[in-house]
Amino acid sequence: MNMESFNDGVFWAAAIILIVQLVGVLIGYIIVRAIGSKIIHRAFNRMEKQRNMHPGRVKTLSRLAISIFTYILLFIVITITLGLFDLDIAPLIASAGIVGLAIGFGAQGLVSDVVTGFFILLEKQIDVEDYIAIAGIDGIVEEVGLRTTQVRSFDGTLHFVPNREISVVSNYSRGNMQAIVDIGIAYEENVDKAIAVIQGACNRVAEEQGAFKEGPDVVGVNALGSSEVTIRIIAKTENMMQWAMQRELLKACKEELDAHNIEIPYPHQVNVSKEA
Amino acid sequence: MNMESFNDGVFWAAAIILIVQLVGVLIGYIIVRAIGSKIIHRAFNRMEKQRNMHPGRVKTLSRLAISIFTYILLFIVITITLGLFDLDIAPLIASAGIVGLAIGFGAQGLVSDVVTGFFILLEKQIDVEDYIAIAGIDGIVEEVGLRTTQVRSFDGTLHFVPNREISVVSNYSRGNMQAIVDIGIAYEENVDKAIAVIQGACNRVAEEQGAFKEGPDVVGVNALGSSEVTIRIIAKTENMMQWAMQRELLKACKEELDAHNIEIPYPHQVNVSKEA
Amino acid sequence: MNMESFNDGVFWAAAIILIVQLVGVLIGYIIVRAIGSKIIHRAFNRMEKQRNMHPGRVKTLSRLAISIFTYILLFIVITITLGLFDLDIAPLIASAGIVGLAIGFGAQGLVSDVVTGFFILLEKQIDVEDYIAIAGIDGIVEEVGLRTTQVRSFDGTLHFVPNREISVVSNYSRGNMQAIVDIGIAYEENVDKAIAVIQGACNRVAEEQGAFKEGPDVVGVNALGSSEVTIRIIAKTENMMQWAMQRELLKACKEELDAHNIEIPYPHQVNVSKEA
Amino acid sequence: MNMESFNDGVFWAAAIILIVQLVGVLIGYIIVRAIGSKIIHRAFNRMEKQRNMHPGRVKTLSRLAISIFTYILLFIVITITLGLFDLDIAPLIASAGIVGLAIGFGAQGLVSDVVTGFFILLEKQIDVEDYIAIAGIDGIVEEVGLRTTQVRSFDGTLHFVPNREISVVSNYSRGNMQAIVDIGIAYEENVDKAIAVIQGACNRVAEEQGAFKEGPDVVGVNALGSSEVTIRIIAKTENMMQWAMQRELLKACKEELDAHNIEIPYPHQVNVSKEA
Amino acid sequence: MNMESFNDGVFWAAAIILIVQLVGVLIGYIIVRAIGSKIIHRAFNRMEKQRNMHPGRVKTLSRLAISIFTYILLFIVITITLGLFDLDIAPLIASAGIVGLAIGFGAQGLVSDVVTGFFILLEKQIDVEDYIAIAGIDGIVEEVGLRTTQVRSFDGTLHFVPNREISVVSNYSRGNMQAIVDIGIAYEENVDKAIAVIQGACNRVAEEQGAFKEGPDVVGVNALGSSEVTIRIIAKTENMMQWAMQRELLKACKEELDAHNIEIPYPHQVNVSKEA
Amino acid sequence: MNMESFNDGVFWAAAIILIVQLVGVLIGYIIVRAIGSKIIHRAFNRMEKQRNMHPGRVKTLSRLAISIFTYILLFIVITITLGLFDLDIAPLIASAGIVGLAIGFGAQGLVSDVVTGFFILLEKQIDVEDYIAIAGIDGIVEEVGLRTTQVRSFDGTLHFVPNREISVVSNYSRGNMQAIVDIGIAYEENVDKAIAVIQGACNRVAEEQGAFKEGPDVVGVNALGSSEVTIRIIAKTENMMQWAMQRELLKACKEELDAHNIEIPYPHQVNVSKEA
Amino acid sequence: MNMESFNDGVFWAAAIILIVQLVGVLIGYIIVRAIGSKIIHRAFNRMEKQRNMHPGRVKTLSRLAISIFTYILLFIVITITLGLFDLDIAPLIASAGIVGLAIGFGAQGLVSDVVTGFFILLEKQIDVEDYIAIAGIDGIVEEVGLRTTQVRSFDGTLHFVPNREISVVSNYSRGNMQAIVDIGIAYEENVDKAIAVIQGACNRVAEEQGAFKEGPDVVGVNALGSSEVTIRIIAKTENMMQWAMQRELLKACKEELDAHNIEIPYPHQVNVSKEA
Repeated sequence: MNMESFNDGVFWAAAIILIVQLVGVLIGYIIVRAIGSKIIHRAFNRMEKQRNMHPGRVKTLSRLAISIFTYILLFIVITITLGLFDLDIAPLIASAGIVGLAIGFGAQGLVSDVVTGFFILLEKQIDVEDYIAIAGIDGIVEEVGLRTTQVRSFDGTLHFVPNREISVVSNYSRGNMQAIVDIGIAYEENVDKAIAVIQGACNRVAEEQGAFKEGPDVVGVNALGSSEVTIRIIAKTENMMQWAMQRELLKACKEELDAHNIEIPYPHQVNVSKEA
Repeated sequence: MNMESFNDGVFWAAAIILIVQLVGVLIGYIIVRAIGSKIIHRAFNRMEKQRNMHPGRVKTLSRLAISIFTYILLFIVITITLGLFDLDIAPLIASAGIVGLAIGFGAQGLVSDVVTGFFILLEKQIDVEDYIAIAGIDGIVEEVGLRTTQVRSFDGTLHFVPNREISVVSNYSRGNMQAIVDIGIAYEENVDKAIAVIQGACNRVAEEQGAFKEGPDVVGVNALGSSEVTIRIIAKTENMMQWAMQRELLKACKEELDAHNIEIPYPHQVNVSKEA
Repeated sequence: MNMESFNDGVFWAAAIILIVQLVGVLIGYIIVRAIGSKIIHRAFNRMEKQRNMHPGRVKTLSRLAISIFTYILLFIVITITLGLFDLDIAPLIASAGIVGLAIGFGAQGLVSDVVTGFFILLEKQIDVEDYIAIAGIDGIVEEVGLRTTQVRSFDGTLHFVPNREISVVSNYSRGNMQAIVDIGIAYEENVDKAIAVIQGACNRVAEEQGAFKEGPDVVGVNALGSSEVTIRIIAKTENMMQWAMQRELLKACKEELDAHNIEIPYPHQVNVSKEA
Repeated sequence: MNMESFNDGVFWAAAIILIVQLVGVLIGYIIVRAIGSKIIHRAFNRMEKQRNMHPGRVKTLSRLAISIFTYILLFIVITITLGLFDLDIAPLIASAGIVGLAIGFGAQGLVSDVVTGFFILLEKQIDVEDYIAIAGIDGIVEEVGLRTTQVRSFDGTLHFVPNREISVVSNYSRGNMQAIVDIGIAYEENVDKAIAVIQGACNRVAEEQGAFKEGPDVVGVNALGSSEVTIRIIAKTENMMQWAMQRELLKACKEELDAHNIEIPYPHQVNVSKEA
Repeated sequence: MNMESFNDGVFWAAAIILIVQLVGVLIGYIIVRAIGSKIIHRAFNRMEKQRNMHPGRVKTLSRLAISIFTYILLFIVITITLGLFDLDIAPLIASAGIVGLAIGFGAQGLVSDVVTGFFILLEKQIDVEDYIAIAGIDGIVEEVGLRTTQVRSFDGTLHFVPNREISVVSNYSRGNMQAIVDIGIAYEENVDKAIAVIQGACNRVAEEQGAFKEGPDVVGVNALGSSEVTIRIIAKTENMMQWAMQRELLKACKEELDAHNIEIPYPHQVNVSKEA
Repeated sequence: MNMESFNDGVFWAAAIILIVQLVGVLIGYIIVRAIGSKIIHRAFNRMEKQRNMHPGRVKTLSRLAISIFTYILLFIVITITLGLFDLDIAPLIASAGIVGLAIGFGAQGLVSDVVTGFFILLEKQIDVEDYIAIAGIDGIVEEVGLRTTQVRSFDGTLHFVPNREISVVSNYSRGNMQAIVDIGIAYEENVDKAIAVIQGACNRVAEEQGAFKEGPDVVGVNALGSSEVTIRIIAKTENMMQWAMQRELLKACKEELDAHNIEIPYPHQVNVSKEA
Repeated sequence: MNMESFNDGVFWAAAIILIVQLVGVLIGYIIVRAIGSKIIHRAFNRMEKQRNMHPGRVKTLSRLAISIFTYILLFIVITITLGLFDLDIAPLIASAGIVGLAIGFGAQGLVSDVVTGFFILLEKQIDVEDYIAIAGIDGIVEEVGLRTTQVRSFDGTLHFVPNREISVVSNYSRGNMQAIVDIGIAYEENVDKAIAVIQGACNRVAEEQGAFKEGPDVVGVNALGSSEVTIRIIAKTENMMQWAMQRELLKACKEELDAHNIEIPYPHQVNVSKEA
């Protein structure tokens, strides 16, 4: 408010303008507060019905939300009003900035959740019922939300995973799966004969089971272990059938090798005797 | 304050306005300080009664809170006053900003706690009495607060977990649980017979115990181990009954295998003797 | 708005200008909002067709996008309008800054994704069909995008890797690969003879298989192990043929050493007997 | 300072105001400095007496504190003074901001300490004499401060833990504790008989010792180990008595099993002999 | 725009100035946009030729670059224009700041790459063809760029390492290398005699091979192991010859010790027999 | 500088003021630079004498310090001067801010050092000669400074630990220490007799050695191991005597158990023979 | 530029001032650019000679440096110029701020390097030729710079360690070193006699070797191991002689124990035979 305003009764004009401004601010406050409270109330009521929450908990949460809203609104109104009286509100803003800084940093995790959730939905990385591994947890997806993804692991546990914790999504439900079986045979056995017998077992399982897409095939000698020669079988199966097929292959190989007297060896050790 | 104000005795008008402003600031300070102190006092008194805290500790904490409040208030009043005298308060604000920055960052953990706590409550991730695993700790939930969650682990320890430490919530109390038992039998045994015997033991346990929801069922040969063929049993049980059922299954399988003379083998080693 | 404006009916001129400004702001708001909504709608519709997404999910996402857009626009319009009435909008901006800060930090991961993706494409670090290892995952690349890279690992799992998670790219499809095989022979055997036999096996494999680019060659005694002398073979093969060639080399060496009666030893132990 | 001030000798008025402002700043500086130094001195003197510190160390620390205080004050005074002469002090502020930034970040750990300490006290997470585990350290609490918590571990070491390092507080002194004992018996033994004998030992200990709150009870077969069948005992004991009770149970079970000739087995191995 | 401008038709002068400013901004926009687009186009065309990239990929990338450039330019032009009409553009700037913040943080990795790359080149830490270890990867350097370093590891994999991931550079190609060989002899052997024999083997290798710079020398008994006395040999060899020389030393020591009947022992164990 | 100044020769007054300001800035620069350089010189000279540093190194460091000081000063003077000519120095400040940001973040570690060091001194966490463990290092403290703590570990290495790396301080020199000794006896031995014998050995050591404060006492059976029953002894000793006392207890227990023919068992294994 | 300037031809004065300002800015730009380019050129030329760098690499780096310098200068000149025409340059500054933010964060590592390097030099933590361990690397220091420290490890590798990676400096070259040797003897041996024999071997080595400062002394029974009683020897040696002395002690103890027929035992195991 400049001093020139004292010339020619301009003062009174300025005063009138000030009062108009004050009233405007007050009316604005009342309207915004009423609308805001109503919106918050409705949001929580809807949530109460949808999620079947306990009324006490909802009341606690909505009261918290309205308090925060009112405090912020009051702060804005007070600073605007002080500004009208030409008081320097910089220190007030600075004080608020400290609180704001803490809140901004504290709440950034929430934004991370929503941004990550948005892209998981948009890029169809996860569908409900998929078998996935995220954030060190694997299981069946029960729900994909903007903030949280719910995964039920094989042992029955329900995991709530905040989306920000999800970096790499490993989805086991997007195509055929590989079944890999390693069979160890004794060093004394003929490798070619063993491979033929194992391939025979594989063919038998492939005929009996309909879940194979490719193979199973013996790919050869995978390692010369400390006590056994390792033969590897690879097969492609229908999704989620890989474990059952691995079990079938293991059983068939064991039976077939037994039938042909090919030894699956125990750990070996050469003992050299020496007198003390 | 512009120099034009010296024209026409405007100076006196300005001085009067200044004094009015100063008095207003002073009154504002006194009112805000009184109200603030009272609110803090009441909050701590209520806490003292609710939590049954030691009066000495409450006094220490409330005195700390009032001091911090008064320092902040004084700082704001001083900067506003200096601003009225046309002194540049930017350096003051900057100095305060340094302190504020440190406080903002230091306190951001607190906001993180509340934001996370809010969503844990809202999304019903945890209920009191649930058996959960959070932040590397597992146990029964004793209390879920906006800042801290209390978990009592199986050995009796009470853990106070700040909510910001909670990322993935693994809740073991949301549905039936899986019981998994692996039984190793000797390579010499007939696999089909062993499976039949183990399934028999499972059926017996299922009849005796009412806690099974599905199975227990033998799913097949899970691995060809170094000394034993591993047979896997899977069952679905009532919540929290999985460990008891696993114990029952282990005992029944041991007894049934013994009764049918099927060997549960010790570790095997083939010794090849060689003279030194 | 200065007080001098009251001199000479300037007030009315100022009022007219204000009204013109307000109308301009309003028109600007309407135009920008319409254009923005249309652009968002079109973008999601195109996406729906291209990615074959569920209409419900697209609707959810586009509604979210339009809400956010409208809220931001409204905020800008309100602050500009208040500014026209000479109200101090600093507190409003500060409040918005808190939200903005959280959003900025939360969204920075998204920018990281795009920047990293841009350079992966620009520097041709990854091509579709390459066999690579990134972020602890290895497999065949299915898609390289600006935000996400899709990798299918050997067991059939599809991994969605946000580009920001990619630091070092290890590309296995850029040139010939090394096959390394270590063969352990007994301490009693003559090392020179063993090397000759193994080299013979290598030469036989090299003749039979066309995938070798260099070698395979025996480079010498690699270690004196606890029970065996380790001989190392190194070869260069065509890309992706290294594992098959390793398997061939293992089989050939086993057969050749058996044929020459050179022992591949089991673990040894010297037993010193002592009476209790 | 506008140029209009040259009209009508306004210049002198401005000069007088300037001088008044300068003198005011100077007086303010002298007063604030005197008060600040006195407060710092007193604080350190009180500390010296309370903590029984070496006068030399106190002198070093208080001198450091006063220097820092004076530098900050001088900086503020200089910038205010320059501002009075209409010199742009933005670069000065910017330079100070750099230092301030470093200080703010460097000191944020301190604030973290106090905020965490405040809530540890407020929520009564730790009391002196409690047996707790924090920050990878466990022991008896000797002192809980706003900045540091002192814990004496079992071997006599005194740990100073800055409160910011405390995330999860595991308090072992809040209720009865669980004692868990696993006893391995030979596969040849009858499981039911062994359970009965072990339960007998438990009952005997329970009679002799008064520290049990529940049990001890045998819960069943916990595992089929490689060489032994594991039987688990669970008991609830008075706080801090769990280890003594575990020792009593171990001793009683050993004696009782010996008395009934039930074998606690050594590791087993099946040796299959083969000629080289 | 002050109200005084209405005095004396100054209004028209102001209007003319405004129009001139607007035209200037428009012309500036057109020029900058044209030049910018051309520069981006040329840069990508040159890259296309140099790196032999697919035209489709180049088109995608250059279109992305031009879009981003145009959006930024438009934003600047709009805010400058609004500023000319006295509209407060602070909210616009604030909105842009949010985006900018995210971009700034997201892009900081890029700057880190270039800064690190600059100093790696300046300090000659890495040359093409050097054998180095960086960021957990070791291999031969194929290319050192400002953003990425390409390393081909021994097995043929090509690694793209963003320079920011490079902290410690371990360069194996800057001088002679040490070859270290540990030989275990039986406890029964005479240590002095064994050292003499091993030194003899070392001397023989040193004569046959020209790659030694110093030694190889036996430095003495390095450890009394559980089954053997370990003798250490140290030698300095030409760069990259250390592994070949280690292999030669191992072979020579084995042969020489065999020739002198000094035992390289298998793991020992004393067996104490006890009846069950 | 407003245009009104052209009215009435005010221009010349303004020009004079400007010149006075320029001269003032120049004089200020010369004085500050001279004083600053002198202070830096003196500080380094004093350091040179106190720490007995090489003059060359001191010269390098002081030259670096003076250059940095001069550059900062020049930057401030230039911006103030430009400000006097009404040139907008915001871009200059912004450029400086970039450098400042980097410096502020880079130097924050230094502040962390000093803040942590201050509290380590204030709270007497560490004294010279204490035996402590900090930052994964343990040893005797040689010096505690505001920036660095020097610790000499048991093997003679001198560690320089920046104070910021110190979080938990584990001080082994604040009170009596616990000595814990676990003795394994054979399963065949009578536990009560063994405890009596071991307690006898403890009593003998306690008589011979004066360093015990409490005990040593046998607390009972600590574990039923795979081959032995573990008996635990606990004692409280004078500070730093715990290791010597543990050695004495070990020797005495071994001798006493030998004298009473109580077996300290080797690892046991039950061998079950099976024909291949 | 206010409108009052149109009064009384003041316009022309303003125009002249504007032109003078523009010319000044232009001249400033030309001078600063010329000087800056020259300084950069000279710096790189000097570096080329000192470090014997390849001219091509120097040219690349200096061209990069000059480009960056020119872009920054141009940006500053453009914003200053726009400011002279009363155009709002805030958006320009904001855009620059984004780039600056990224640069500031990216370059902070560089400042960290220099700050850490400064204190390493100032506190004489490292001297060239010292044997140290930093950042997980140990070796002989070849060069200590403000940005990088070069360490050559024992195997000949040269490590470039950016100073920021250096936290704790472990310096092995600051005083005498401890040599620690643990000797295991059989449980059947008399401990007192074994200690006497080992002390005899120590005395013999101490006489033969001049590098001992204290000891070597037997401190007693350090552990009752699973198969042996461990006796510990401690000695203080000249710097860098600790490993040689440890080797001498090991050899002497082995020989002395052999001479006195005291057994250094192999691992023991008690075998309990059981029929299947």
